[in-house]
Amino acid sequence: MLDALPTTLSDALQWRYAVKKFDPSKPVSDDKIDAVLDSIQLAPTSSGSQPFKVLVIRNDDVRAKLRAVSFDQPQVTDSTALLVFAAWDNYSEDRIDNVVDVHAEQRPGTREMLEGYYGNLKAMYLPRDPYVNFEHAARQSYIALGFAMYTAAQMQIDTTPMEGFDAAAVDEILGLSDQGLKAVSYLAIGTRADEGDWLAPMAKVRKSKDVLFERID
Amino acid sequence: MLDALPTTLSDALQWRYAVKKFDPSKPVSDDKIDAVLDSIQLAPTSSGSQPFKVLVIRNDDVRAKLRAVSFDQPQVTDSTALLVFAAWDNYSEDRIDNVVDVHAEQRPGTREMLEGYYGNLKAMYLPRDPYVNFEHAARQSYIALGFAMYTAAQMQIDTTPMEGFDAAAVDEILGLSDQGLKAVSYLAIGTRADEGDWLAPMAKVRKSKDVLFERID
Repeated sequence: MLDALPTTLSDALQWRYAVKKFDPSKPVSDDKIDAVLDSIQLAPTSSGSQPFKVLVIRNDDVRAKLRAVSFDQPQVTDSTALLVFAAWDNYSEDRIDNVVDVHAEQRPGTREMLEGYYGNLKAMYLPRDPYVNFEHAARQSYIALGFAMYTAAQMQIDTTPMEGFDAAAVDEILGLSDQGLKAVSYLAIGTRADEGDWLAPMAKVRKSKDVLFERID
Repeated sequence: MLDALPTTLSDALQWRYAVKKFDPSKPVSDDKIDAVLDSIQLAPTSSGSQPFKVLVIRNDDVRAKLRAVSFDQPQVTDSTALLVFAAWDNYSEDRIDNVVDVHAEQRPGTREMLEGYYGNLKAMYLPRDPYVNFEHAARQSYIALGFAMYTAAQMQIDTTPMEGFDAAAVDEILGLSDQGLKAVSYLAIGTRADEGDWLAPMAKVRKSKDVLFERID
C-alpha cells in the first residue's frame, strides 16, 4: 500500500474523470496498481462477505476479445490493466460457511457467535430469489469500485469505470459462470492521453447540493 | 472540502471499521461532515446521472422513528448525522431529460450531442423492468457510499454503513415514495466510543488476495 498522499482530497476528486483515451505508452507502475488492489481488499461489504471476485487482466488477447463485446471501447485494450468486478450470482450455504470459516480463523474464539449471526443471514438470504441476492452482491462490489477509483485518484493515476459491455459474453470469455460469478463492471487503469480525449476539456458536471441532498435538522 | 490529509491511505483504510457504538458526546464537526458530502457530490455515476438523493438527518425525533424500524441499532441515534442513500425507483423520460439539462447548462454547445447520447440511453432504460432500473440506480449510490466512507476515514472520523432496516417503513417515514425514491443504505457518521464496542478489539478480516483476485497476464 502506498504510504504517501500526493494530493489533497478535493484535488484528487476534482482531477479524476472517466478517461476516454488512454496513452498505452505510459503504463502505470505495478506498485500503484497493487495499491489500488489493496484498497479493494480493504473495502467493507455487507456482513464482511466480500461477495465478488476481481479479475486483473493484462493479457492482450483476452482484452481484445473483451473489447469486441464492449462496444469496441478503446480503454479495454489501451489501459495498463483492466479490472473486471464479478459478483456472486447467488448466496449459498457453502459460500456463507466459507465466510464464517475465514472470520473464525482470523478471530479466534468467535465461531459460536459467527454461526449464530450467519445462520440468521442464511435464513434470510437462501430462500430469496437468486436475482435479489445477485443484485445485493453486485452493490457491494460498487463500494470496492469506489475505493479503487478513490485510491487511484489520490495517486494521480487514471481510471475509467465502465458498464457498457455484453455481460453474458464477458462471462463466457472469462469462464465466470462456471465459478458462479457474473461480470458487473470494469475499471480500466492507465494514463490519460495528452490529446484526443473529447471528455478531457469538459467541465465536471454535478448536481447542485440543494438537489442532491435533503437536510432534516 | 478539507484540504489536508491527516493519514496515509493504508492507515486510513485499516483504521476504519463499522462502528457498533458511537459516543454521542463527541460530535463530528460540520466542516468534516461537509467534506464527506462534497465527496458524495463528486462521486462518479453511470452516464453522470447521479440517480439518487442523500438525506442528511440530525433531527432526533426522525432518527428515533428510523431506529425503531432498523432493528433498534443505536448508531441511528448516537451518531452525529445519519445519511440515508435513496435511489431512484426507476428511470424516466423526465429524469433523463433533467440530466441532459444539467449537463447542457454546464457544458455550453453540447446539447445536440447530449440529446443523441441520452436518447440512446432512454431507448435502453425506459422499456426495462423498473426493478432492473432501480437496482442499477442503487449500485451507483454504493460508489458514493464508498467515497463517503473513504473520505471520512482519511479525516479519522467514524462511519457505519448499514443495510439492516425495513426499507418500506423508512420510505414511509421519510416520504421517499412520493419522490420516486427508495432507501437503500444508511451511513451513520460519528465518533467511536472508547469502550463497549464488541467489534472494536477484533482483527479486521479480509479474504486473501489469491482468493479475491484472479490475474490474467
